[in-house]
Amino acid sequence: MASVVELLTLDNAVFNAYMFWSAVLVIKMLAMSPLTATQRFKTKTFANPEDLRSSKLKVKFDDPNVERVRRAHRNDLENILPFFVIGFLYVLTNPVAFVAINLFRAVAIARIAHTLVYAVHVVPQPARALAFMVAFASTAFMAVQVLCAALL
Amino acid sequence: MASVVELLTLDNAVFNAYMFWSAVLVIKMLAMSPLTATQRFKTKTFANPEDLRSSKLKVKFDDPNVERVRRAHRNDLENILPFFVIGFLYVLTNPVAFVAINLFRAVAIARIAHTLVYAVHVVPQPARALAFMVAFASTAFMAVQVLCAALL
Amino acid sequence: MASVVELLTLDNAVFNAYMFWSAVLVIKMLAMSPLTATQRFKTKTFANPEDLRSSKLKVKFDDPNVERVRRAHRNDLENILPFFVIGFLYVLTNPVAFVAINLFRAVAIARIAHTLVYAVHVVPQPARALAFMVAFASTAFMAVQVLCAALL
Repeated sequence: MASVVELLTLDNAVFNAYMFWSAVLVIKMLAMSPLTATQRFKTKTFANPEDLRSSKLKVKFDDPNVERVRRAHRNDLENILPFFVIGFLYVLTNPVAFVAINLFRAVAIARIAHTLVYAVHVVPQPARALAFMVAFASTAFMAVQVLCAALL
Repeated sequence: MASVVELLTLDNAVFNAYMFWSAVLVIKMLAMSPLTATQRFKTKTFANPEDLRSSKLKVKFDDPNVERVRRAHRNDLENILPFFVIGFLYVLTNPVAFVAINLFRAVAIARIAHTLVYAVHVVPQPARALAFMVAFASTAFMAVQVLCAALL
Repeated sequence: MASVVELLTLDNAVFNAYMFWSAVLVIKMLAMSPLTATQRFKTKTFANPEDLRSSKLKVKFDDPNVERVRRAHRNDLENILPFFVIGFLYVLTNPVAFVAINLFRAVAIARIAHTLVYAVHVVPQPARALAFMVAFASTAFMAVQVLCAALL
């Protein structure tokens, strides 16, 4: 079996791809905070009394534009964070490079598309459902591979 | 001290158990999405205008069945995701195999039980509180072990 | 290039710091659950019918004290969890120890401060915004470093 020395190195194209796409997805996730802030300032929707810049404003929780970005962000937490964990363990199972690299690519591009059609420019369904499914199925596939590797 | 070469390999029963239970928990977490979707379709509760299949429907955020699954899912994010990180670092502290393997088992089984009594078939308290506490205490124990290993 | 054998060991001061501050942050995140529970019992705000101790109580979702702790907790999920992933990959890029150790320190101390001024004792802005920004910028910096390492 391949040792962790050969697996967790940038010389391993699979780990290199994992690092690259994970960094891209971390940056994408971080970008949700300024995106939420932009919507909050644009619509003057603040959730905390100490955030109100004027005494005329009140806390507000139901602006549809703010809530849309927050739903997209939460969906990232539910899907991208488990991918980080299972993607890393999948690298350690020494998968076929072509399959693994394209799975990482699929997850990352699908999740970027998910954000674009959900929170940046709303596109009718099934755009968001498809983007969700590609990343979901790829992550589930990796989880089954890790499960099998641990069992055998 | 044991090297990462001997720790991060499937020959190490502790890491093998970590991989197995982590994969199980990732699959469990992923299953929350279809579970939420099932409740959304059953109760016709959709959070986005583009998700409405009929012009008679309106967006809705307060269905108790949908919200229950969403609370269970959020509780997973709060508890299972930190476990993934601290469980991995705990493997690197080269713990006693018997203790470590049973801690991973405890977290995974407790979190599956948490979902079952919270979001699948509601069981009166203290069922959910107990399931929560077993996983919480096990994760906290590992965090303290990692802290001590890093300090010494 | 440094091998994972020299990087993922407590002899590596950078990885030692990563383990220490990650364990601290996991414990900090876990502490949000008892903090939420304390507010729930103090204000008798329970989200599930099975949690009500008396037949006179009703489920309630809008207590400002409970919701404040929940917002702080969610902000942790959005910021600390991505840090765990990118911080680990950053260790594998073999960064300058002085820079890396202080970045981990900055993230951890800023996130602890964020919780204190947000959910424990409310401090007027820009206290929370500053704490948020320090951890956000440090995490973004690491993500860019990981991206560059994977690309070159």
